[in-house]
Amino acid sequence: MNQYDFGTVGLGVMGSNILLNVADHGFAAAGLDLSPEKAAAFEAAGQPGQSVFGTTSAEAFAKSLKTPRAIMLLVPAGKPVDLAIESLLPFLEQGDIVIDGGNSYFTDTNRRFASLKEKGIHFFGMGISGGESGARFGPSMMPGGDKSAYERLRPIFEAIAAKVNGEPCVAYMGNGSAGNYVKMVHNGIEYAIMQLISEIYDLLKRGLGVADTDIQELFADWNQGELQSFLIEITGEILKVKDDETGHLLVNVISDWARSKGTGKWTSQNAMDLQAPVPSIDSAVTMRNLSSHKEQRLEASKILGNVSPDSKTDISSISQSLKDAYYFAMINVYAQGLAQLAIASKEYQYEIDLSEVTKIWRGGCIIRAACLESFREAFAADSGLQNILLDANIARLVLDRQSATRDIAKLAIDKGIPVPVLLSSISYFDGYRSAVLPTNLIQAQRDFFGAHTYERIDKEGFFHTIWE
Amino acid sequence: MNQYDFGTVGLGVMGSNILLNVADHGFAAAGLDLSPEKAAAFEAAGQPGQSVFGTTSAEAFAKSLKTPRAIMLLVPAGKPVDLAIESLLPFLEQGDIVIDGGNSYFTDTNRRFASLKEKGIHFFGMGISGGESGARFGPSMMPGGDKSAYERLRPIFEAIAAKVNGEPCVAYMGNGSAGNYVKMVHNGIEYAIMQLISEIYDLLKRGLGVADTDIQELFADWNQGELQSFLIEITGEILKVKDDETGHLLVNVISDWARSKGTGKWTSQNAMDLQAPVPSIDSAVTMRNLSSHKEQRLEASKILGNVSPDSKTDISSISQSLKDAYYFAMINVYAQGLAQLAIASKEYQYEIDLSEVTKIWRGGCIIRAACLESFREAFAADSGLQNILLDANIARLVLDRQSATRDIAKLAIDKGIPVPVLLSSISYFDGYRSAVLPTNLIQAQRDFFGAHTYERIDKEGFFHTIWE
Repeated sequence: MNQYDFGTVGLGVMGSNILLNVADHGFAAAGLDLSPEKAAAFEAAGQPGQSVFGTTSAEAFAKSLKTPRAIMLLVPAGKPVDLAIESLLPFLEQGDIVIDGGNSYFTDTNRRFASLKEKGIHFFGMGISGGESGARFGPSMMPGGDKSAYERLRPIFEAIAAKVNGEPCVAYMGNGSAGNYVKMVHNGIEYAIMQLISEIYDLLKRGLGVADTDIQELFADWNQGELQSFLIEITGEILKVKDDETGHLLVNVISDWARSKGTGKWTSQNAMDLQAPVPSIDSAVTMRNLSSHKEQRLEASKILGNVSPDSKTDISSISQSLKDAYYFAMINVYAQGLAQLAIASKEYQYEIDLSEVTKIWRGGCIIRAACLESFREAFAADSGLQNILLDANIARLVLDRQSATRDIAKLAIDKGIPVPVLLSSISYFDGYRSAVLPTNLIQAQRDFFGAHTYERIDKEGFFHTIWE
Repeated sequence: MNQYDFGTVGLGVMGSNILLNVADHGFAAAGLDLSPEKAAAFEAAGQPGQSVFGTTSAEAFAKSLKTPRAIMLLVPAGKPVDLAIESLLPFLEQGDIVIDGGNSYFTDTNRRFASLKEKGIHFFGMGISGGESGARFGPSMMPGGDKSAYERLRPIFEAIAAKVNGEPCVAYMGNGSAGNYVKMVHNGIEYAIMQLISEIYDLLKRGLGVADTDIQELFADWNQGELQSFLIEITGEILKVKDDETGHLLVNVISDWARSKGTGKWTSQNAMDLQAPVPSIDSAVTMRNLSSHKEQRLEASKILGNVSPDSKTDISSISQSLKDAYYFAMINVYAQGLAQLAIASKEYQYEIDLSEVTKIWRGGCIIRAACLESFREAFAADSGLQNILLDANIARLVLDRQSATRDIAKLAIDKGIPVPVLLSSISYFDGYRSAVLPTNLIQAQRDFFGAHTYERIDKEGFFHTIWE
């Protein structure tokens, strides 16, 4: 009774891996799951000398934990989180801490925080990134909300987190639902970078007829230098894996319509509410949606012409430009997501410290990349920085690459290969640096047909013109 | 008492113009507004022989109308609509008809429909487009929901609607909130086309240094042929208007951050919920948002380099390509919006007839354009058409223009002018016609880091691989 340090509700891939990680660091770990098989499998996975306990009984689970209890929910977002909280409530006491470690929508976190506070229970949302392997051996974790509750559990989280130069990839993100919000935007960035990588792959393979092995070598090479990142690394790994049954590369027998769990969509939808422009994330969400209309695409390919590969192209002639274009677009993707966080922080009073965000994204998470260190430095130098493109060092990185980026964009347009994240990154860059945009014409149009009024550059106020 | 045929709540620009239009067609028209000035101004605007009545009393308003009453709400979307309904309810009787003529969010319409049905009151949402002038002399109207109620009022609506070849621009759009939904997507298309026009304007003015008068002539010329449309027409008009105070072109003293009322945003956000790709509408929403960050843009222009006009370019050398690019992108914008309607119609059981939608969009509304006739023909020939790009005639229109479109896109990329709607239209076209997209790689990545499983091209099921 009351001997376990930390518990999770949900013993799926994430729940059991997080708990085994906790146990590896000397804490006693208990897990609750509706499935007896998962509870038993978790117990069986404990190593000799470790204290692990799996159960299907909420009461036994609650009784097993030291008080005040530390319980993390790792169940699918939405209704399951509410059900898990309900099932625990009869066995909880004032002062207990409940952490939602899933991808909950941030407004749900606000609601749950308020409802549990009434019962004297500390609740906070904490985004966790790193997938299966990260959860087991060191994730990046983004807690927000009840700071004192987080501080009490900080030793456990710092122990299990990924480390970069000895620094743990976990830090307090801010007030309220800041933890879930930061994780949501993390996933939006993840969508855009995955789409960007697939665009480079498509341009090479379908546009230029480059062989799979050469594409594999290119990504493996990119992972050695300034482009080093988890997503580039696994792309190189994926392109090596053969399908046992057919002997083909496995990726070539995987279907081309992508599913998603909604966090990228939420990022775009909420960005629109906040007037935060994130066109490259929007494009990535949209391309997953377009990919799902497979039958129409097949029909369209017969009517509108499909792409056929160019004659074999010497990859070496464009490899440096490709690398530059990827780097340019990638920085613009991070710029959009981080700028959204700056806007959300003001709107929702999160008080997010973006140097902390970029610090803990350097390791453990899916979007970890060498470039994060430059972003962290930029925010460390100017904590009020609204956009990393306004930092002189980052600006130099993109300016040095813009010419090559434009060349690759034009090549893709000529070849008929859809590269929406690359193109929207260029549009974002060109729009963001425009002291004057042509939206004055849009204001005039709105006033013309709808009497919506307009503002002037030379004086205050709202004006209406009878245009005709 | 009980002598007026039709009433509106709200005597703002739209309300009083719709009522004066009703009065012009021989119906007796009553208006309710909280403002005595607006009520009086409306009455004063009635012509000799017309029967018009303005009041600030809900009771007097209700008593003035023939029963069963026909009342249209023309108040801002959101809370004001609920307040208007509440203020009327004490004076309404079973069988009365209440029409919401504003830009209400479609889920609000569903809620109000259910709540008023309990009270025996017929309620339906009806999108109205055409702005100030359309309301006065002939709008396009998109009613949905209670069909029998619409049928009773059809003679009034057909009388006041815009006409194309004698056919009124009003038709029943479908079940439930179909009327508001169709209008929402209409506005999403409107956002994208306005942005597209501003991109052409920007490329000419800022990218190529073309004189305002030459740009004006170009738009005036475009309005004579296949590009004839309301938005092109007013752009030509706008570029002629001088500012009395400064003597400059008025558009040149209008500020460059665009406001919006949210319908474009709703279109994009809901499209993402439905997995309907509308990247050009997303881009237009995003550019309005980007335009609002004026201070950051000014700072960025100093760090990232601003565009300076090219040496004077001979507009005649690119005018045909520009025209083709505009036409190509415009068709892709309509294709996205109409495809969203096809998807929404299934999802929400609207049973929208897209040949009716395109028929009533030919006149009266903001997005009326010569091309709508081709779209109507395509849906008339195949009522199950999922995307106008799959129609052979439309396909020919875009295929004939794709080469010129790519040239203009590359020119804009070279000049550093942001043309996101143009570029996303190309991405959409190239993505939509791709029999195979590179999203298989994204599925592999998701399975690699998150064990999300993938599907295969050669057999059914979900599969997981240990990639490392």
